[in-house]
Amino acid sequence: MSKLPDIQTQFAEWYQEIITQAELIDASPTKGCFVFRPYSYAIWENIQRELDAKIKAMGVQNAYFPLLIPESFLKKEAKHIEGFSPELAVVTIGGGKQLEEPLVVRPTSETIIYHMFARWITSWRDLPMCINQWANVVRWEMRTRPFVRSLEFLWQEGHTAHRTHEEAVAMAEQALAAYKSIYEDYLAVPAIVGMKSENERFAGAERTYTIEGLMQDGKALQMCTSHVLAHSFPASFDMKYQDSEGNTQVPHCTSWGFTTRSIGAVIMTHGDANGLVMPPRIAPIQAVIIPIIKADQDSASLLEKVAQIKRDLESQGIRVKVDDDPSTTPGAKFFHWELRGVPVRIELGPKDLANDSVVLVNRTESDKALKKTVVAIGALKTALPELLQTIQRNLLQRAWQRVQSQWYHADMLSEFGPKLDANNGLYQTGWCGAAACEEKMKAYKGTIRCLRDEQRHPKCCVCAQDSKHDVLVAKAY
Amino acid sequence: MSKLPDIQTQFAEWYQEIITQAELIDASPTKGCFVFRPYSYAIWENIQRELDAKIKAMGVQNAYFPLLIPESFLKKEAKHIEGFSPELAVVTIGGGKQLEEPLVVRPTSETIIYHMFARWITSWRDLPMCINQWANVVRWEMRTRPFVRSLEFLWQEGHTAHRTHEEAVAMAEQALAAYKSIYEDYLAVPAIVGMKSENERFAGAERTYTIEGLMQDGKALQMCTSHVLAHSFPASFDMKYQDSEGNTQVPHCTSWGFTTRSIGAVIMTHGDANGLVMPPRIAPIQAVIIPIIKADQDSASLLEKVAQIKRDLESQGIRVKVDDDPSTTPGAKFFHWELRGVPVRIELGPKDLANDSVVLVNRTESDKALKKTVVAIGALKTALPELLQTIQRNLLQRAWQRVQSQWYHADMLSEFGPKLDANNGLYQTGWCGAAACEEKMKAYKGTIRCLRDEQRHPKCCVCAQDSKHDVLVAKAY
Repeated sequence: MSKLPDIQTQFAEWYQEIITQAELIDASPTKGCFVFRPYSYAIWENIQRELDAKIKAMGVQNAYFPLLIPESFLKKEAKHIEGFSPELAVVTIGGGKQLEEPLVVRPTSETIIYHMFARWITSWRDLPMCINQWANVVRWEMRTRPFVRSLEFLWQEGHTAHRTHEEAVAMAEQALAAYKSIYEDYLAVPAIVGMKSENERFAGAERTYTIEGLMQDGKALQMCTSHVLAHSFPASFDMKYQDSEGNTQVPHCTSWGFTTRSIGAVIMTHGDANGLVMPPRIAPIQAVIIPIIKADQDSASLLEKVAQIKRDLESQGIRVKVDDDPSTTPGAKFFHWELRGVPVRIELGPKDLANDSVVLVNRTESDKALKKTVVAIGALKTALPELLQTIQRNLLQRAWQRVQSQWYHADMLSEFGPKLDANNGLYQTGWCGAAACEEKMKAYKGTIRCLRDEQRHPKCCVCAQDSKHDVLVAKAY
Repeated sequence: MSKLPDIQTQFAEWYQEIITQAELIDASPTKGCFVFRPYSYAIWENIQRELDAKIKAMGVQNAYFPLLIPESFLKKEAKHIEGFSPELAVVTIGGGKQLEEPLVVRPTSETIIYHMFARWITSWRDLPMCINQWANVVRWEMRTRPFVRSLEFLWQEGHTAHRTHEEAVAMAEQALAAYKSIYEDYLAVPAIVGMKSENERFAGAERTYTIEGLMQDGKALQMCTSHVLAHSFPASFDMKYQDSEGNTQVPHCTSWGFTTRSIGAVIMTHGDANGLVMPPRIAPIQAVIIPIIKADQDSASLLEKVAQIKRDLESQGIRVKVDDDPSTTPGAKFFHWELRGVPVRIELGPKDLANDSVVLVNRTESDKALKKTVVAIGALKTALPELLQTIQRNLLQRAWQRVQSQWYHADMLSEFGPKLDANNGLYQTGWCGAAACEEKMKAYKGTIRCLRDEQRHPKCCVCAQDSKHDVLVAKAY
């Protein structure tokens, strides 16, 4: 274990190092692909469980569609293929033979799912049709970064068809609300919600909602999106139905996705100089119990007590790990589990045992008075859940404070652009809606991350014409 | 809805028709791939939940490895590539460019996982290393059948490394025991456990355990396998470690997999002339409540009672659906849910409401006296779980009786071969262990499904030399 790079001044290096040292991820022999080691996959499983419940509660059903899609399918929708064709992995050989028609490894599944929807939807009674898929997708990325951008990633993709545009909009917004809840209530990551500019929309969408995050280094991360598709999109796949009057109609569709990138957002939002910080609700290990044993002492009764505490806490549904490895010191154990961001450490030594108490150590506090609490063993069953809740709540609150501190209001690009270029950060400003003005932001490596509902800046930051929307401008991952 | 083909005389046609009519599956535009519609995917989710818990209880951790594997990796193990090369899908184009080294879509992940194990395992302290992956895999199959054999399927693959051969054998057997429990305790499918002959082993295995099922048509289905790999296999991937004496050793490895084929086993074991029969423990819907409403009656109080019963049962963890679609008759509803194999129907009409009772209808009984029971609404909370348990138990018992009735003992291939060829069935007989004798069974379309522990047949059924093992011979899917 080498020392972590300084998180303030070497954020990118810190990130690369912590994901390796904490055994979240490893490089793979397949260029641009990463291995999700058990510790990161467990985070994903925790996210999946919560998000899956929300998706089902929206009346959406899970299903599974083929990984490989005939190449011609992607070409049915002009904007869609334009957006995705540079990123495709193509299977040309199957069973030892050249294929007549190449198969594309899905970059997203609108095309094949819409083909099936067209078979399944015939009457207004079949609508809404709401399907979700948990799957892997492949997009050929040149510049990769673990969790944030990789050739293959894991996600869920929701695909729905509705009778009216209003229903489709409501569905896309409902999915967005579920995502916002996952980010804020579970991952404790501030969710900045808005709409994408036309230029940044999903290939084939009429409207793209986004949730943007602002990482500690002041760069934005697009954390998930939800789309209302152009009405021409389902039509391209021959999707149609008879309405209750017997007229032929084309349904209105949505798609929305949430990916393993979210794990990157957690790391880059909460990590600190000592390593990861895991929000309790998705932490693979919520509390680690460390018995403090001296080599010359009899440890049997202490280990017995530790095992009993573990059983009791687990029966409450708390995810607990005991580290009683005799080959490492308590100090090394503290370091090991702090690096991995386990929210609470429970220390139990001979004196604690004699007092029938334990020491609870809060991973997120550096102030010594707040960091450690002595708790009677009998009180653990309420004290630990309370501490986990406090940590969860504080993490979101602190992250919002930090985001606010990096969120500036600015009027002219010429003025804030150099600051953005030099120091990152999120700039709220006015925009006339013209693509030409949007393009100028790139001179400072900025892009419009999203449009805001409020309007506090009356003039476009580039052309000084009347602003149509407040926008948030930042560099993005 | 057309009438189902006769299950006795047209089993294959019945199968194709029921999986479509019950909306389990649909053909896809990708040849050889199928769409798992919500009803079949929900079965898979139920299986996953139970099996995942068992896998974790064995101390195995979930992780995720890349879908695409450099082609050279498969060539590192001679037998492995020999077994899999005819079945590979190969990506040759990525991001618009011809790849320098083609990437294979994983047919199984030993090669890439062992490459990572070689990086992670250095000392005896790192062992055992036990990893599981839930994933999709692709094998280029020419003759496909939904669930049973398709170009892409879903599975879990366990991969473990151990210090000793004994530990590896114990792990492979533990995985097999978990699979047996899933088949018998959850899917109510009789599990015939044994070892594969050398000829039928996994490519690269020293030993392959199998669980075979016998479907209603008397054909065997290989339902899952668990392998102890040849010791040369991890060595091919440079896997090695220092033992506690400082000597370099090669670990002993296992791999084991359980696939969506299991859904096919459920259908072909329990289905009947009226459609599917779902074992309660994995049924997506365990009970369907059907209010019996006449058009001219006020149904408000009845529907209110139905909603309350649903809430109460759901709070007990029972998966309940209400079908109160006003556009279909009760008879059509009965047919619809019987076809889908929902184990229990709960009927509630005005007379039942007046009596404060419901009618429970058991999907698996044809005898009218056993099929229907009147139960007080207040007693449902115990009566329904009991009925579901009874159905679960009876399904396994009946399936075993049916398997026994198709399980014959026979001495000479020349005698039982023609019967096997004409009527299918499972034949227990003796085998000398010679591949030449095994080969002769193919004249009757039979193969050795597995070796038996018991030895009741002293002579080889082909050459009449001393038998080494009792074997089970059948045609196989």
